[in-house]
Amino acid sequence: MELKNLDKIVTLCKTRGFVFPGSEIYGGFANTWDFGPVGVELENNIKKAWWKRFVQESPNAYGVDASILMNPRTWEASGHAQGFSDPKMDCKSCKQRFRADNLIEEHSHGETEAEGMTTEQMEAYIAENKIKCPHCGNFNWTPIRQFKLMFETSRGTVEGEKDVVYLRPETCQGEYVNFLNVQRTARAKVPFAIAQIGKSFRNEITPGNFLFRTIEFEQMELQTFCKDEDALRIYEETKKRAWQFAEDIGLKADKLRFHDHEKLAFYAKAACDIQYKFPVGWEELNGVHHRSTWDLSRHQEFSGKSMLYTDPVTNEKYLPTVVEYSIGVGRLTLAALCEAYDEETLEGGDTRVVMHLHPAIAPYKLAILPLQKNLSEKATEIYSALAKEFMCSYDEAGSIGKRYRRQDEIGTPFCLTVDFDTLEDGMVTLRERDSMNQIRIKIDEVANYINEKIKF
Amino acid sequence: MELKNLDKIVTLCKTRGFVFPGSEIYGGFANTWDFGPVGVELENNIKKAWWKRFVQESPNAYGVDASILMNPRTWEASGHAQGFSDPKMDCKSCKQRFRADNLIEEHSHGETEAEGMTTEQMEAYIAENKIKCPHCGNFNWTPIRQFKLMFETSRGTVEGEKDVVYLRPETCQGEYVNFLNVQRTARAKVPFAIAQIGKSFRNEITPGNFLFRTIEFEQMELQTFCKDEDALRIYEETKKRAWQFAEDIGLKADKLRFHDHEKLAFYAKAACDIQYKFPVGWEELNGVHHRSTWDLSRHQEFSGKSMLYTDPVTNEKYLPTVVEYSIGVGRLTLAALCEAYDEETLEGGDTRVVMHLHPAIAPYKLAILPLQKNLSEKATEIYSALAKEFMCSYDEAGSIGKRYRRQDEIGTPFCLTVDFDTLEDGMVTLRERDSMNQIRIKIDEVANYINEKIKF
Repeated sequence: MELKNLDKIVTLCKTRGFVFPGSEIYGGFANTWDFGPVGVELENNIKKAWWKRFVQESPNAYGVDASILMNPRTWEASGHAQGFSDPKMDCKSCKQRFRADNLIEEHSHGETEAEGMTTEQMEAYIAENKIKCPHCGNFNWTPIRQFKLMFETSRGTVEGEKDVVYLRPETCQGEYVNFLNVQRTARAKVPFAIAQIGKSFRNEITPGNFLFRTIEFEQMELQTFCKDEDALRIYEETKKRAWQFAEDIGLKADKLRFHDHEKLAFYAKAACDIQYKFPVGWEELNGVHHRSTWDLSRHQEFSGKSMLYTDPVTNEKYLPTVVEYSIGVGRLTLAALCEAYDEETLEGGDTRVVMHLHPAIAPYKLAILPLQKNLSEKATEIYSALAKEFMCSYDEAGSIGKRYRRQDEIGTPFCLTVDFDTLEDGMVTLRERDSMNQIRIKIDEVANYINEKIKF
Repeated sequence: MELKNLDKIVTLCKTRGFVFPGSEIYGGFANTWDFGPVGVELENNIKKAWWKRFVQESPNAYGVDASILMNPRTWEASGHAQGFSDPKMDCKSCKQRFRADNLIEEHSHGETEAEGMTTEQMEAYIAENKIKCPHCGNFNWTPIRQFKLMFETSRGTVEGEKDVVYLRPETCQGEYVNFLNVQRTARAKVPFAIAQIGKSFRNEITPGNFLFRTIEFEQMELQTFCKDEDALRIYEETKKRAWQFAEDIGLKADKLRFHDHEKLAFYAKAACDIQYKFPVGWEELNGVHHRSTWDLSRHQEFSGKSMLYTDPVTNEKYLPTVVEYSIGVGRLTLAALCEAYDEETLEGGDTRVVMHLHPAIAPYKLAILPLQKNLSEKATEIYSALAKEFMCSYDEAGSIGKRYRRQDEIGTPFCLTVDFDTLEDGMVTLRERDSMNQIRIKIDEVANYINEKIKF
């Protein structure tokens, strides 16, 4: 377990094409990361697995893909335009900007919870404890100011007028504002769910721990609209389904735990995270929240449009209660990478780095490796046929051992070697990543064999 | 053909859950659209088909998913920070803002091309022809000013400093800045390609014709890096592949045409669009561009980092030439919707609206329809099994004829009816959307039968 430090995983990600620093040639750009050739397949596979589970296989679940740029009134209704901010202080000596709550929590090694403190309490704590600037070491702070977490931009279709537009800080409002559009067009009956995968943006200043916290991040969300009396049952079911999904894509049960929120929003009846034991410790992987009728009621108030659902049997009109399940693609990808990473000592003393990714989310499903250069023609033919079925890698450079290691490092579950017997008997050798066991199989049977293994 | 007017398609999209106006409850938000339950499946299927064709099945093609927010130096290198703007004039009477080039082109019914005019020439033309404000009818213009098309926002990690950040106006820079990261980690040899699907943003003021032009849009791009002497051959091949893809997802050849650009960027050797005959006329569907070494050379200059590729055989170092293929998801989705839309007169005189979407991109592949209420149990059992295979719809409300019509309108290629015989013989009726032919088939064979039909 000691082996799993984040630095090693970050290094592997950069060298093997999972993840690169954003805008790297320009010295990067704070808290952004670009998925490389292997990483983009991994994240796409995770998104597909989630969508299959929570939309395709779920009766009464419907997807949407709402715009990132929404009418600004949306964020007045949600409260983000007024209240979504972090308490910031500037160091007057070095001009760096910090979150006051983070300064307190770091100074007290997590013993003091700053979350419930007022601005004055935080300023007093920092003064009493003489907390210094982590950058220059001086004690020379400005007062705390609230720093908006929403990125602002503007249109300007009319002269002199600068219509403020926000980059959405969460995707769920796209589901809420479309609640009746979805209900009407899908002729959906409560309880039903709206799912969405899409990007959100937050002007985070704190360091991000790689993919864990980024200024731009993708969320996968399922909002279930239900009768209030069913909400707590659905909340418990949703927790179970969220946990099951985390396990099914490969996260081990002993690295997962529920963590009930200590403080609830005034309108909420329950809120819980699933935490994962990252190399840096237990951290939030996803959230499941009882949100009551808060969001729909706010949109009803601010838009002046009825958001009432009409029960088709009783004709009763009401605002459904919402149970939200939300998980970040980047964070889940990071958890999958951390879980999968392993350094194994082989017979003979060599070590191999291997990513034990679940075959359903592994970037490449199969690597096709001709044992000798003059087998390229046959190997290419096999590649062309199988590339129609799933993502295949083709590699003819270096020793077969080196080629296996390269595939192990990107988590390819199967390697297919073409040898001289293949030309005679139409059979190939299939080597499994984790066990390194090899079987001999007919070329024609490979597609089915692997399609069976990569099912989710 | 007359039937295919855009208004009818927009109405169908709203009523059937393909596309809703963005932030509709707040009166919408200019030129944004939200994909509904049916639309999100359609666009996802189009993206999957494109990725399968241009990444999965293409040797030497590698995906990336770069951040939307990039280091601002990127846009200095690309030229967008300096020059990416539209010539705007404000009507001093009604304060509305217009594009001067559009005013000229609309006034001359397309006879006068404003694209090459200077600001002074445009102002002179508008004055001479007394072009009036389309909104209020007055002739009372401000001078032309350049209006930036990039959305600007800012971070602010240091006091007093407002780091400008742009929402990317095109995805391709994410491929260019990662050129060597991808090449190195994939050990790719020229010619190879980098593909990306992602969102871009442009502060467009002109009306959008539904999904055709939106302030937020998704691009699918393939950038091929090659030796300069191979570039024109690859350019021609890319044109053919782009055309073939358009045909393969269902666009008819007689509604497609190549359209060479009349003016080329000074660095480019060739540029061509594929146009589609939309209900509003021939319009650009995608572009294929020879970009020479322009982009890589600019990034090399602005970043100070070498972007040179080293030939593994000759050790020659050079900047590869880029051939770009770029297509908008929204625009392609719109073309697919326009192509698919049909109103048919049935025997007996009834009409049906049917979306002849290619089965590979159709939102739902199968609708499961119990003929009577008391067949729900069997039908639900069939639904649960087949929903693991592909997107299925389940509908037991209304007459079977009405249910067929609903599925026709969203383009579901197959409807499966469960009847009393099903309980005896384990067979169901499968009705094909376009021909309305029905076959009797074993339940166990349905998955394979349909999986075969929806292949891309």
